[in-house]
Amino acid sequence: MKRDQSLDWAVVDQDLGPDLILFKARYDHCQHPESGRVLRRLVLESVDWVNLVALTADGRCVMVRQFRFGVGYSTLETPGGMVDPGEAPLAAAQRELREETGYTGGEWTYLGAVEPNPAFHDHLCHHFLATNVVPTHDQALSGGEAIRVDLMTSEQVRAAVQSGELRHALALSVLARVFDLWPRPFVHTAMPAPADAPRRLQS
Amino acid sequence: MKRDQSLDWAVVDQDLGPDLILFKARYDHCQHPESGRVLRRLVLESVDWVNLVALTADGRCVMVRQFRFGVGYSTLETPGGMVDPGEAPLAAAQRELREETGYTGGEWTYLGAVEPNPAFHDHLCHHFLATNVVPTHDQALSGGEAIRVDLMTSEQVRAAVQSGELRHALALSVLARVFDLWPRPFVHTAMPAPADAPRRLQS
Repeated sequence: MKRDQSLDWAVVDQDLGPDLILFKARYDHCQHPESGRVLRRLVLESVDWVNLVALTADGRCVMVRQFRFGVGYSTLETPGGMVDPGEAPLAAAQRELREETGYTGGEWTYLGAVEPNPAFHDHLCHHFLATNVVPTHDQALSGGEAIRVDLMTSEQVRAAVQSGELRHALALSVLARVFDLWPRPFVHTAMPAPADAPRRLQS
Repeated sequence: MKRDQSLDWAVVDQDLGPDLILFKARYDHCQHPESGRVLRRLVLESVDWVNLVALTADGRCVMVRQFRFGVGYSTLETPGGMVDPGEAPLAAAQRELREETGYTGGEWTYLGAVEPNPAFHDHLCHHFLATNVVPTHDQALSGGEAIRVDLMTSEQVRAAVQSGELRHALALSVLARVFDLWPRPFVHTAMPAPADAPRRLQS
């Protein structure tokens, strides 16, 4: 993997920031590669994440809906979650699918990993495809979760993407490796209406 | 846009967390829709973001390389950045392209928006396509930036995605709306090698 090391900033110091439930904040004191100026930069430390496309034998996609605290509404997404310490990403993906939806089994393929945002996140999100999954369990949700399972055809998934109902970047990322999501040339023209903006109660 | 309001958690209280340079942390005290239990959940408040695919008249893509503090190495990405308060997303995209690369002009198309992560981010990232851009300015970087511009053919962009050199989820998201990035059925098989894992200096 090619990296341009002439762009690298040296980390000359670090201090730890607050624990943010999902992340630990860290501040790296980094030196500009040309000016030598040192700036304090945020890093959000976490374990890796996983998400997955799970297909039943008749080609339907096992999707989830849940309230998302960042945006303040319920979203349609792919199953996924955090990799437990010491857990393999594949095992985490299989566990999250079982816990969130009750589906297990099937054949699993690794679809590669993405950086959710390398500007401040230090982790990867690993993508998987599971085919021929079967409903074998009840949901096993934590007290902090309320998740509804939706079985959708690939046409329904594509329609949800095209309408903007599904626009979680990491769910789109894994879905795009399985389904043809985007017409090319792309046809979007409208900007989101103000009523569609994220709800901000206080700032 | 369909939402399942039966999954909604009521926000019963809020407290403000630390200012994290890029974000303001907020904690929403949210009530589980079934159990009634109240949990404290992190929200990272920020302005919206933009990123864009900029193509020259001969079809080359204006890409940028910069050190990313989260992962601790330089990455290949699409131009982009934050929307200034009161700025329109299109104006922000045009400004970021000019500041980061010196390219201006061209015809602009809105490609839609994604939620970078609705679990804890409250903002959108707006995607744009600019065709027929022209180098007219010098870079205008802040003291906190060091950015190298790379002109790449669509084949080079696809190769960087396939090799894993480019794996920033939001850059992939905008690129996927312009280029055919993924073979279907997908062919990835290898998990990332340990040496390829994000650098963590302290945790």
